Amino acid sequence: MAAGSSTASTSAPASAAATSSTLGVAVVGLGGAVATTAVAGVELLRLGAATTDGLPFSGVDVPGLHAYTDLVFGGWDLSADDLGKAADVHAVLEPAQLRAVQSTLAEQTPWPAVGSVEFCRNVSGANVIAPARAEGESELRAQARHLVADLERFRSSGGPGGTPLGGLVVVNLASTERTPDLAAPALQTAEAFEAGLDADDPEISPAMLYAYAAVRSGCGYVNFTPSLAGDVPAIVQLAEQAGVPLAGKDGKTGQTMMKTVLAPAFRSRALRVEGWYSTNILGNRDGQALEDPASLQSKLGTKKSVLDSILGYPVEDHLVRIDYYRPRGDEKEAWDNIDLVGFLGRRMQIKVDFLCRDSVLAAPLVIELARLTALAQHRGQGGVVEELGYFFKSPVTRQRGAVPEHALHVQERVLLEWLEPRATAA
Amino acid sequence: MAAGSSTASTSAPASAAATSSTLGVAVVGLGGAVATTAVAGVELLRLGAATTDGLPFSGVDVPGLHAYTDLVFGGWDLSADDLGKAADVHAVLEPAQLRAVQSTLAEQTPWPAVGSVEFCRNVSGANVIAPARAEGESELRAQARHLVADLERFRSSGGPGGTPLGGLVVVNLASTERTPDLAAPALQTAEAFEAGLDADDPEISPAMLYAYAAVRSGCGYVNFTPSLAGDVPAIVQLAEQAGVPLAGKDGKTGQTMMKTVLAPAFRSRALRVEGWYSTNILGNRDGQALEDPASLQSKLGTKKSVLDSILGYPVEDHLVRIDYYRPRGDEKEAWDNIDLVGFLGRRMQIKVDFLCRDSVLAAPLVIELARLTALAQHRGQGGVVEELGYFFKSPVTRQRGAVPEHALHVQERVLLEWLEPRATAA
Amino acid sequence: MAAGSSTASTSAPASAAATSSTLGVAVVGLGGAVATTAVAGVELLRLGAATTDGLPFSGVDVPGLHAYTDLVFGGWDLSADDLGKAADVHAVLEPAQLRAVQSTLAEQTPWPAVGSVEFCRNVSGANVIAPARAEGESELRAQARHLVADLERFRSSGGPGGTPLGGLVVVNLASTERTPDLAAPALQTAEAFEAGLDADDPEISPAMLYAYAAVRSGCGYVNFTPSLAGDVPAIVQLAEQAGVPLAGKDGKTGQTMMKTVLAPAFRSRALRVEGWYSTNILGNRDGQALEDPASLQSKLGTKKSVLDSILGYPVEDHLVRIDYYRPRGDEKEAWDNIDLVGFLGRRMQIKVDFLCRDSVLAAPLVIELARLTALAQHRGQGGVVEELGYFFKSPVTRQRGAVPEHALHVQERVLLEWLEPRATAA
Amino acid sequence: MAAGSSTASTSAPASAAATSSTLGVAVVGLGGAVATTAVAGVELLRLGAATTDGLPFSGVDVPGLHAYTDLVFGGWDLSADDLGKAADVHAVLEPAQLRAVQSTLAEQTPWPAVGSVEFCRNVSGANVIAPARAEGESELRAQARHLVADLERFRSSGGPGGTPLGGLVVVNLASTERTPDLAAPALQTAEAFEAGLDADDPEISPAMLYAYAAVRSGCGYVNFTPSLAGDVPAIVQLAEQAGVPLAGKDGKTGQTMMKTVLAPAFRSRALRVEGWYSTNILGNRDGQALEDPASLQSKLGTKKSVLDSILGYPVEDHLVRIDYYRPRGDEKEAWDNIDLVGFLGRRMQIKVDFLCRDSVLAAPLVIELARLTALAQHRGQGGVVEELGYFFKSPVTRQRGAVPEHALHVQERVLLEWLEPRATAA
Repeated sequence: MAAGSSTASTSAPASAAATSSTLGVAVVGLGGAVATTAVAGVELLRLGAATTDGLPFSGVDVPGLHAYTDLVFGGWDLSADDLGKAADVHAVLEPAQLRAVQSTLAEQTPWPAVGSVEFCRNVSGANVIAPARAEGESELRAQARHLVADLERFRSSGGPGGTPLGGLVVVNLASTERTPDLAAPALQTAEAFEAGLDADDPEISPAMLYAYAAVRSGCGYVNFTPSLAGDVPAIVQLAEQAGVPLAGKDGKTGQTMMKTVLAPAFRSRALRVEGWYSTNILGNRDGQALEDPASLQSKLGTKKSVLDSILGYPVEDHLVRIDYYRPRGDEKEAWDNIDLVGFLGRRMQIKVDFLCRDSVLAAPLVIELARLTALAQHRGQGGVVEELGYFFKSPVTRQRGAVPEHALHVQERVLLEWLEPRATAA
Repeated sequence: MAAGSSTASTSAPASAAATSSTLGVAVVGLGGAVATTAVAGVELLRLGAATTDGLPFSGVDVPGLHAYTDLVFGGWDLSADDLGKAADVHAVLEPAQLRAVQSTLAEQTPWPAVGSVEFCRNVSGANVIAPARAEGESELRAQARHLVADLERFRSSGGPGGTPLGGLVVVNLASTERTPDLAAPALQTAEAFEAGLDADDPEISPAMLYAYAAVRSGCGYVNFTPSLAGDVPAIVQLAEQAGVPLAGKDGKTGQTMMKTVLAPAFRSRALRVEGWYSTNILGNRDGQALEDPASLQSKLGTKKSVLDSILGYPVEDHLVRIDYYRPRGDEKEAWDNIDLVGFLGRRMQIKVDFLCRDSVLAAPLVIELARLTALAQHRGQGGVVEELGYFFKSPVTRQRGAVPEHALHVQERVLLEWLEPRATAA
Repeated sequence: MAAGSSTASTSAPASAAATSSTLGVAVVGLGGAVATTAVAGVELLRLGAATTDGLPFSGVDVPGLHAYTDLVFGGWDLSADDLGKAADVHAVLEPAQLRAVQSTLAEQTPWPAVGSVEFCRNVSGANVIAPARAEGESELRAQARHLVADLERFRSSGGPGGTPLGGLVVVNLASTERTPDLAAPALQTAEAFEAGLDADDPEISPAMLYAYAAVRSGCGYVNFTPSLAGDVPAIVQLAEQAGVPLAGKDGKTGQTMMKTVLAPAFRSRALRVEGWYSTNILGNRDGQALEDPASLQSKLGTKKSVLDSILGYPVEDHLVRIDYYRPRGDEKEAWDNIDLVGFLGRRMQIKVDFLCRDSVLAAPLVIELARLTALAQHRGQGGVVEELGYFFKSPVTRQRGAVPEHALHVQERVLLEWLEPRATAA
Repeated sequence: MAAGSSTASTSAPASAAATSSTLGVAVVGLGGAVATTAVAGVELLRLGAATTDGLPFSGVDVPGLHAYTDLVFGGWDLSADDLGKAADVHAVLEPAQLRAVQSTLAEQTPWPAVGSVEFCRNVSGANVIAPARAEGESELRAQARHLVADLERFRSSGGPGGTPLGGLVVVNLASTERTPDLAAPALQTAEAFEAGLDADDPEISPAMLYAYAAVRSGCGYVNFTPSLAGDVPAIVQLAEQAGVPLAGKDGKTGQTMMKTVLAPAFRSRALRVEGWYSTNILGNRDGQALEDPASLQSKLGTKKSVLDSILGYPVEDHLVRIDYYRPRGDEKEAWDNIDLVGFLGRRMQIKVDFLCRDSVLAAPLVIELARLTALAQHRGQGGVVEELGYFFKSPVTRQRGAVPEHALHVQERVLLEWLEPRATAA
């Protein structure tokens, strides 16, 4: 990591002899469209074959912030396809781009992963870990141990030529899980969670297991999915104890991003939102996972929470639909209808049709989040990093149950002030 | 900011014995759809028959700010139809609303106006002033004298029961004029303008004449149209000398408002705007005026200026169309297509279709502008009130030629800080 | 009925002394938005206060076809609100239109109806029949008897001043019922159905009861809903025996109508439909009924059947959504996305957004169907009148299980040929 | 219809010993996006690398109709780029498709063309013919002679391995010219036109010159552009005399095709069209040509004529806009808003957004037109072939000034009956 930040070695727990500037990114769901796009994107940046379009913080230069080309990726996936094959299937890259990076991507194969049909019914695969269990060891404990070992191996040799990494962040990009019972005792404290692992508690999901492994390994953890993980009280407590940063949850890319841009404007102009109907059609693996009603419920939960707090009143007719529609592949379409009431009670409507590409919007945010979470760790900031709310549909708050800020422009200001405290204070 | 409204009599130049809380609003184009909606709206508020939907500052309470029900309207129009008839023609109100206020509106007839086919070809009418001219007096000078007299009469007896007004603001809501020669000598200084009036200078438009009369009468002046008026150097100089506030120009209501909401978000997310195609269809009197290519040119000028400064780079393919399309009447439709380039150069599109009502969006802004311009005058702020840029497509800057702030959320913050300096400082 | 058709008295079974030109229309769901709009519309036509916009066959003049002003309405509803009140609630008419007919509408109160939470969960009301039952008489039998008596009373005195009607048609406009078990023995033959009535067979729905009463009373029957009724084999058999015409089912008004217009064009141009995503938002009573998944299933069934037979291949990704969304009231919005594949496999998209008014589209079709079904009866055509397929999402075929014609332009040609055989033959 | 292809030699004037099945297609504007797509498409069909998607008559098999793979292309262009390079620039093909045909396309270079800045201001190029002129020969006469010679050369050696063609059709795909003076004497009769050529009459455009050369060479002529050519009375007379078929004009691909599909449905349902607003954005060479207001005028003329005759009343608010918008390239977007009036005067709206690909829609129609025009010639049908109106925005009628049929489904029926008279008679 950058010289000039003499505090790095002390503030970053467990990590960072700072002898290397390489930032490892261990991805849950490495073979998915978002992850392969991020991996390919960094590779194309390295080759000078991509611009910084879509990367919000390309112009930011603060001590301790990794360059894009510092990033190296690893991670787990239920599919053992190498990333070259995966990128070909996802068809996000242009043919010329794919050709430029395919051989490099083809060298990379996801590590065996932890899956659970209990939590995510529609996504499965054969690339599953099967850890040898010590006498009396529970299955969850063995899995957790295995994931920690994956991270340690990556940390010690994931850099170029097998060198150690200079930093390590775990990012969850896996398909959405169903919501577990939030009140389950095992999820409430660090101690109870440890006991839950040993007792194979059924409320502990794969997503939590990855988050646990990240925290236990001293890695910052980013939850880009709606799954419950980094926001489980037990995990938060563990992260605070370990001084490890947590960021989440559910990346704010297309429709919800637009919502948090438009709603503040309607509030500003006192245009009352009488109803907001949102529908999404998408045909990639994420869409398929959401065919499972339980996974869908988790997703809709984070998508629906943003309006009321921005507007200051409840929008009773706020409907959100997500439909798996294969012709679209990764090219998602989000159609919104907004019913507004203006002066003298007269009604108006706005329709927004966003023909977007899920992975193209998400991948650069993942890259930035890896950099910024590593920065938080470099600065010694443990627990929930609320200032990263800019990236998420459902920002986790430091104070449990607090209403997060959703307006994009406010989140941006908060983030910029966090990024460059001196610059904005001046 | 003023300690209390007791200081009003000293800070408001030329105006206001402050014995009355009534705020007069003299409208250029009083018979138009926006103006009649504003007049009817205030009347409905007085009757308790309307909510504050659409009024952005209904919750603001600062010393010196008039209540909505303080407003009384007067003004000029080329049509002599009473406002009851005008409101019926414009068909903005719901039938029940119209019935509630029609008799009150019917009592009000616009004053004869100054028109010019030279500057606005498609709008005409018979309700034209024909001032008696003193020996050797120019036509423009006589017209200016007439307008000043109109304002003085309104000020002295425009309140309830013929009482004097407590304040007076002039608002231009007339149809768009063609752009005059900005370099014309008569428009450069206060002195030259006075000479131009005496010489019937052809570059002095009706809009300028109204602005001149406002300033000369010590009234704040709001330019809600794209016409050149309050931003003519000569008028600015006169207003600064007189301590009279100027606000403008071109009300930011529908499509352009949305643009200044969306563009900052695209910049924030580093989504590059490759092209932005905007088309508008509308069927009211404003639309008809814009059938004249010269008027259209003025309008397009203010509509096209907003993108580049927000984004920080020129959008070469930024096209704006406005078409007169009668089936829509006052119910404007604005359709936008935005071509975005994201990560790895991949293209995305957003379509926005805004089925809006021009007058419903504009009228409450006019009402707020009247209140806020009077507040500026109350606070003794003369010349261009840059903090009101929030309301305008083409905010006039204090420093001539400076690039104005266009992002709505930044304009809002600036305005709120101006409104309540103590609150935001705290 | 009209002189000039000397065959009327013989060919129209059970009906028609032809002393009166009045055509009675007995509506199931008389208080709903579609029905009140139809009733008000005929009244406005009578007053000369409406044009024939929206009435497809206003220019047709064939022997035996009733004039619009021949129509008089009666019918059942679970709500006892008079039609004046109902029209006010549905808010389909313009205020001036409502004022013109409200007193006439207020004189009309729906007859008590048969309802069943078993078949339509979300719609209920207190205006329910409670027929006295003869010793040993089943409930269904008593209800059927009651409905037949309603029709006989209407037929004998429903005309102006209590005169007999010249014809009588029953139209089902009630909310959608869940689909019963089509294989149930009671629904297979006339005989079994009669036995089912006596045994209170649970597969006999209210919709079937009305259809049965219509046929038993010698009235033509129109099913404008997706409910199973006129297409039950038992009812078809009864109608064939009685020489009574049946028309149905599910009125083709907005989105599906458009589908049957666009799909033939895509087939014509060999543009392959890869996917078709349709969503509907509506806020009226029909929308609320469809919140019940069982009712929704019936509705989606008829909406989804139209594409494949027109195109000649199955569209696997044909999705249809209907959502109850209150801000819209009766003003439905249908948004469609169509994914097309053209020459060389290149993909294209079409989006169609139809801002329609459900009742405004449906009511004139109901009026035409009443006239044309009476015409069929006048001509002696019993059983399924396939030529009326033009009006329906799911045209019932004479031959059970046959694939109906769905393309609107073909249906139109078939209907016009049926209407005026001599004209088209010439 | 001809009993067999053995009659071709007598019925097809000047052409065809019919020893070859090859059909030559000489294209005006061979280097354009539509033409190169057609050429590449036929090549891909030959390779078995394309399906018949987008080709409306792939299932038709009538005597005398050429197979797709019979087609060989030649033609003129102001750009001398070979077709491989042109296809690369137009970017219509997918990379893999381009690779498959690029070498074949690269072998083909357009012949030098006739251009005229008088008639088409925005399109120019250096690949211009410069025929040697005989003593006293006019420029136009020399150009016409040159074009005829091009066709004769192509006819005698354009087949595989330099063999003679079995048939030859000329298709105009060049950019739109401004409309000449239709009343000009030189355009009225065959004789006057010949004289006009010798006098270098300024009203004779390049498009007419190509049409003249086609007819003089005994080739069928297809006008896929809005330019005046095959519909000039003089050319029609020449074609009738020569027994050469003419088809035109202005290919009906996207927005206008949709209009002629939707408008018949609105008429059918008696939904009155109060206004229709159409806008197009496109970024290819055609769009650039239309930046010239004179060319635009020609184009808008053909686009606006379709509604009124279908509906049976004039739509006064029918507006059509075309804008050159570079981000789109060949991927045109057509947005339509339709204002409908239904029952009881209630208004509804439909928006249609067609994200299409100009060349993908046009190229297969061009291919079919070449086949069908050759078929007409094979059948001995000279002059305007009205039955091909299905393909055109502005179908030319046999009787001058007659109102053509515009409804797509009627045009389709007419064409199918023409194609297979026995089949439809049966």
